[in-house]
Amino acid sequence: RRTSTVHPYPDPSLVGIVLGAQWGDEGCKGKLVDLLASESDVVCRCQGGNNAGHMVHCGSLEYDFHMLPSGFHLPNCVNIIVNLPELVDEIKKNEAKGVTDWQKRLLISDRAHLVFDFHKQTDGLIEKGRANVPSFSIYPFSLLRSLGTTKKGIGPTYSSKVTRNGVRVIDLMGDFDVFAEKLRNLFNYYKMTFPDLEGDIEKTIAQFKELAEYFRPMVTDTIAYLNRVILDGDKKILVEGANATMLDIDFGTYPYVTSSNCSIGGVLTGLGLAPKFIGDIYGVVKAYTTRVGDGIFPTELNNDIGVHLQTKGHEIGVTTGRKRRCGWLDLVLLRYTNMINGFTALCLTKLDTLDELSEIKVATTYKRHGEILNSFPASVDTMHDIEGLLLSFIVVQR
Amino acid sequence: RRTSTVHPYPDPSLVGIVLGAQWGDEGCKGKLVDLLASESDVVCRCQGGNNAGHMVHCGSLEYDFHMLPSGFHLPNCVNIIVNLPELVDEIKKNEAKGVTDWQKRLLISDRAHLVFDFHKQTDGLIEKGRANVPSFSIYPFSLLRSLGTTKKGIGPTYSSKVTRNGVRVIDLMGDFDVFAEKLRNLFNYYKMTFPDLEGDIEKTIAQFKELAEYFRPMVTDTIAYLNRVILDGDKKILVEGANATMLDIDFGTYPYVTSSNCSIGGVLTGLGLAPKFIGDIYGVVKAYTTRVGDGIFPTELNNDIGVHLQTKGHEIGVTTGRKRRCGWLDLVLLRYTNMINGFTALCLTKLDTLDELSEIKVATTYKRHGEILNSFPASVDTMHDIEGLLLSFIVVQR
Ligand SMILES: Nc1nc2c(ncn2[C@@H]2O[C@H](COP(=O)(O)OP(=O)(O)O)[C@@H](O)[C@H]2O)c(=O)[nH]1
Ligand SMILES: Nc1nc2c(ncn2[C@@H]2O[C@H](COP(=O)(O)OP(=O)(O)O)[C@@H](O)[C@H]2O)c(=O)[nH]1
Repeated sequence: RRTSTVHPYPDPSLVGIVLGAQWGDEGCKGKLVDLLASESDVVCRCQGGNNAGHMVHCGSLEYDFHMLPSGFHLPNCVNIIVNLPELVDEIKKNEAKGVTDWQKRLLISDRAHLVFDFHKQTDGLIEKGRANVPSFSIYPFSLLRSLGTTKKGIGPTYSSKVTRNGVRVIDLMGDFDVFAEKLRNLFNYYKMTFPDLEGDIEKTIAQFKELAEYFRPMVTDTIAYLNRVILDGDKKILVEGANATMLDIDFGTYPYVTSSNCSIGGVLTGLGLAPKFIGDIYGVVKAYTTRVGDGIFPTELNNDIGVHLQTKGHEIGVTTGRKRRCGWLDLVLLRYTNMINGFTALCLTKLDTLDELSEIKVATTYKRHGEILNSFPASVDTMHDIEGLLLSFIVVQR
Repeated sequence: RRTSTVHPYPDPSLVGIVLGAQWGDEGCKGKLVDLLASESDVVCRCQGGNNAGHMVHCGSLEYDFHMLPSGFHLPNCVNIIVNLPELVDEIKKNEAKGVTDWQKRLLISDRAHLVFDFHKQTDGLIEKGRANVPSFSIYPFSLLRSLGTTKKGIGPTYSSKVTRNGVRVIDLMGDFDVFAEKLRNLFNYYKMTFPDLEGDIEKTIAQFKELAEYFRPMVTDTIAYLNRVILDGDKKILVEGANATMLDIDFGTYPYVTSSNCSIGGVLTGLGLAPKFIGDIYGVVKAYTTRVGDGIFPTELNNDIGVHLQTKGHEIGVTTGRKRRCGWLDLVLLRYTNMINGFTALCLTKLDTLDELSEIKVATTYKRHGEILNSFPASVDTMHDIEGLLLSFIVVQR
């Protein structure tokens, strides 16, 4: 039998990666990144957009990052789905808190896709379209109900990307007339599906003409940049995953997932980083489990303990302000996300939230019809037997 | 300076991966996979669908694979976008050529997304919608022209996946009424955009009821399966990438790309394979360059030599029957795809096609406005200066 760790001590000069191991909000993911970032020269985001939120505490100041990598006071690059108007706001807010000189340090990928206002609107209109379809009582979750997205337009932007009429940062850097025409065409394409879309596309075009000049100095071929930095070998690189593996479009609890790959593969597809340069992969694990929005959650606690965890743990979303659902730590889930990512280290957070509980449970096994499931199932929604999913727990008394 | 190969001799028992290093059709990609497959116990596909085509020559027989992995006579798994009705046809054709017993060896991922007839129809209708938009002569490529897709419905299926109303194999395995309702809802959603969609969805539902039973024994949690096989350590695993890096949705010549990640990251997101288990990454390189469909092609030869390569090299697509565009080998492109994938070995194919040429060229550098570009550019379409992209060549006389 082969042991599962093939490279037990990866070269510390390789790229470090921080990933959420549950449904996001693993607590100090931002804190860990900030800690590691202080030893790093380059900090990168690789997927998602401003659907993610991290709060970084630094002395008496709270920085609140959505698109920006957590080490915004360091050289860093953004290599994702970018909403440029909101990125300006995010930068301004952080400037007000004393971050300066970022112009020389923020790099934006020339291949990133742009979020437009109609992408955000579409997020809402899709829900409206869904609401027109009758829901059927036989389903544990009605089929076309809201997915509980953050309504930042990230899903529709990934959809434009796949449809291959998405508009990228590089388009904004090229001939502006071509950019304007691409944007008009994309807007018209959306109008075909959603005639109720509002907004004056010519105003958006004028706005982006200004944004082009604001961001031009930062736009870089981040693939070539990152690979050059790695080969030079004198800089420490950190990648900050947004969202978390259980929200991954392929491995998460589909369809209640985000629109991108937030597991290790998304780091490669986002940055153009070859696997041989991957060093430590840190999995951030909260001592219990939380989830924002809809979807299956086997260890959820719909009782006083759940309320206690929510209150004591301040479990309220940074991006949306929604209360997080709370439940026990789930090792079946953790084994699954560890299998996919191959974590080399785990960072356990928020143990103190459990301080006042006399009994703590940790789920170890799922059973269905008496049989032990060998992994986290592909779908529990459609099986009609969420109630039939029995969990075995370890109980810790104190 | 760090050398670029950190693991020069990866453990041969790790997972081997074959990827196209150009725009697909690298020649013996299928042949190499077949060669390696004969030493492998498990052969996997990880992305795309039946937009890809491989021809495997075996004695006097020609096998023609689209969704099936090339080692179909071996245990193998399909972990992609599957068109089940067409997979039945593909299996039947191969059965007729003498492949038997595949039922015990073919595994289909429970998380794969299903292609439906309306996805295929949509591929055509999107082009029709595009054709209604006036094309503008100022653009080197008109903005909304056909992308030259294979029209297999793969793009729209990836789009359903991202919109999170996609229907997966696991749905077909669960409560059939729930599956039927999901399918009706997805069809109605497409009808909102494309009222002209044809077909009787109830007929499709009836067809899938039969397909569910045909495929049920093969449906597996391939993530858990593959990881178990790796940890057992006694089986050799091979992954066969479809399409190629220059067609990758993130790294290719967007928008003239396929709808999935066909570089190394797509192997991880497709299979749930942690990076530590990656062994050899074979890049398949044709001794010249070809491209099917539209999009930039810097070394393209629109002359007698191009025609010679097309004819001598039998450059006609396996999936679509289209003639391939031909040009010189491009090392700028190869450096780029090698940077992204980190190839540990290159497999050079079809050198013999160049036999009769007195002079062979190999592009080494791109220049724009006299400046050398340091990597393959994010976009050459929107720069108005495809003609301005000067190539430096090495010329081989004989
Ligand atoms: N009680 C407690 N709270 C923590 C701990 N680590 C982080 N938090 C809080 O958890 C909240 C979410 O943290 P954040 O970094 O935004 O989570 P992220 O989305 O995973 O990056 C913040 O209010 C943090 O102050 C911890 O170890 N104990
Ligand atoms: N002349 C020549 N033809 C080859 C060679 N290798 C493959 N081919 C042919 O190239 C065509 C495309 O091969 P295929 O395996 O379908 O390409 P793939 O899409 O990259 O897998 C087939 O007709 C092969 O017979 C070679 O080394 N020399």
